[in-house]
Amino acid sequence: TAPANFEPGARIFAPYSIYKGKAALSADPLLPKFTKLETGDYRVERRGVIMLTFWPSIGERKYDWEKRQKFALSATEVGSLINLGPKDSCEFFHDPSMLSSNAGQVRKSLSIKAHADGSGYFVCLSVINNAVNTNDRFVVPVTAAEFAVMRTAFSFALPHIMGWDKTVAKLPFSGDHQGSGS
Amino acid sequence: TAPANFEPGARIFAPYSIYKGKAALSADPLLPKFTKLETGDYRVERRGVIMLTFWPSIGERKYDWEKRQKFALSATEVGSLINLGPKDSCEFFHDPSMLSSNAGQVRKSLSIKAHADGSGYFVCLSVINNAVNTNDRFVVPVTAAEFAVMRTAFSFALPHIMGWDKTVAKLPFSGDHQGSGS
Amino acid sequence: TAPANFEPGARIFAPYSIYKGKAALSADPLLPKFTKLETGDYRVERRGVIMLTFWPSIGERKYDWEKRQKFALSATEVGSLINLGPKDSCEFFHDPSMLSSNAGQVRKSLSIKAHADGSGYFVCLSVINNAVNTNDRFVVPVTAAEFAVMRTAFSFALPHIMGWDKTVAKLPFSGDHQGSGS
Amino acid sequence: TAPANFEPGARIFAPYSIYKGKAALSADPLLPKFTKLETGDYRVERRGVIMLTFWPSIGERKYDWEKRQKFALSATEVGSLINLGPKDSCEFFHDPSMLSSNAGQVRKSLSIKAHADGSGYFVCLSVINNAVNTNDRFVVPVTAAEFAVMRTAFSFALPHIMGWDKTVAKLPFSGDHQGSGS
Repeated sequence: TAPANFEPGARIFAPYSIYKGKAALSADPLLPKFTKLETGDYRVERRGVIMLTFWPSIGERKYDWEKRQKFALSATEVGSLINLGPKDSCEFFHDPSMLSSNAGQVRKSLSIKAHADGSGYFVCLSVINNAVNTNDRFVVPVTAAEFAVMRTAFSFALPHIMGWDKTVAKLPFSGDHQGSGS
Repeated sequence: TAPANFEPGARIFAPYSIYKGKAALSADPLLPKFTKLETGDYRVERRGVIMLTFWPSIGERKYDWEKRQKFALSATEVGSLINLGPKDSCEFFHDPSMLSSNAGQVRKSLSIKAHADGSGYFVCLSVINNAVNTNDRFVVPVTAAEFAVMRTAFSFALPHIMGWDKTVAKLPFSGDHQGSGS
Repeated sequence: TAPANFEPGARIFAPYSIYKGKAALSADPLLPKFTKLETGDYRVERRGVIMLTFWPSIGERKYDWEKRQKFALSATEVGSLINLGPKDSCEFFHDPSMLSSNAGQVRKSLSIKAHADGSGYFVCLSVINNAVNTNDRFVVPVTAAEFAVMRTAFSFALPHIMGWDKTVAKLPFSGDHQGSGS
Repeated sequence: TAPANFEPGARIFAPYSIYKGKAALSADPLLPKFTKLETGDYRVERRGVIMLTFWPSIGERKYDWEKRQKFALSATEVGSLINLGPKDSCEFFHDPSMLSSNAGQVRKSLSIKAHADGSGYFVCLSVINNAVNTNDRFVVPVTAAEFAVMRTAFSFALPHIMGWDKTVAKLPFSGDHQGSGS
């Protein structure tokens, strides 16, 4: 195909996917949403995330995308992950309906546990949905090399999901940022 | 909302904010100011900074933005911060009126002190203003994960507050930079 | 020459090349290929790679480009390489005709072995081609400084060969990414 | 001043400068030069560098720019520098007239030596010019924080002085990079 640029507004899908025996895992950055202020300036309205998607194996090299479950890593959870040493572990808990009347119905937990020999991690997602009485659990072993890809790609993506790439991409102009209040 | 680009000149606010029991802390990159030379070239006139803003808690999940105090981290102070090991500490002193007739009236100090167990840092800002006889002190405990976000985001922002993103974004063209004087 | 931008579609060659006694080695990032979906969105169709090229020495400061052999590092293999400690080693095996009727005819292996004193690595490519009965072997000693260039440049290139630079370069707009399924 | 973009072709000066008792040191990235091939593609003709400039102190807070000397760090020398541990040292030798009839007349050496306590480095430039019988020597003590700025900024600049930012900035299009030769 000939060279061609993407149309503005088109979505670009470039997941980093890891297929293992029991399940597959993919990671995708999702950008923040900005709001225009009355002054004409912009403010982040909703932070971006790194979206993790898990879906189960249903046979040799076959996976069921319909049974996928998602877990959206916040900037601080990404910080926890990229800071993980070869023997460290971490765990995050999410309630997708937090602060609504459905709070507590769905409980998600993501855990990342180092192998004892430092050769990689087990990444596990558990989703307990009391509304429909389901209990899904996915375990994906991630090698040190795959985790290095995630650490590098997540570090790259972090300023973008925070919106700092937009903050620093402004045209150069004079500001008052080092006035007497600094 | 429909896809839309930012207007040139608009400011983009995307602070990284940490809300804790006694105070909140946010960080924002501020770009350098350039000056056009008579040759048509540009030179950094004022370096950019990472601006830290602290404001106090005044009740459960309530914070008083009117009582905020700022501390502008220079490139070298950012270098100190991103270089901090899990057991290290550092402290910076600023006088916003340095070299003016008001020198010494306001004294600011920012200290970052590691927890003994390496699980995070205490970030403290003290502002003593002798002109109005105030003494503000903010302490924000920052977890290792939050500090990892700051380290990664500050490392990303550092070349931008220095202006190096502009230096390397030039169109490709022939230079004489490796002549006999190199 | 006067300032000038590259024409769109032009290829840019900027290999990082290391010339040593027995052979030379160069590295080049190659971008992913995208496919336009019926929705107007885009998806990575073929992942990018870091292409390593080896070619033999045939005399003092002379090298034979016609005898070159290539090895395409995937994102995960790049992750393995940038994660390598000063005493670590790794090895990758490729079959360029994998899953075709010619599978097994050509076997390539790339090994990276640390010097015992941590001062660098031996990078070796072996290509056994049973179809034409050849057996090529290249060994390039890489210093710690040269490896640091590769690690830094490969870390920079990794999000690009994954396509994440395109994912995060979208115009800012509203998404639904933190809805109830997250 | 109002927001304004840089004119294409304008040079942007944003040196990172360190002023110490005996001398000052500044660092600046200089981009590679590209050549257009007959095919319409481009190739790096001359690699970029990080240019270090030293100039002597001639009194309190006064420095003599006319007496400056330069040292152009190649990509691999930058790799050596960013790889330097807190107790490590390195040294580079340049002959600006290498391979010409004036070879050997000017000898430059740059050394970076860690303080015994890991608190920073001595950066020394020595320039011996036998043609004009001069022997200049500059020593600039660099703190760990200043070196962290250099490491981060040099790591950022490295892909740019190699030309890899241009390689990966191409429009997305189909390539043949994983054909049977890979």
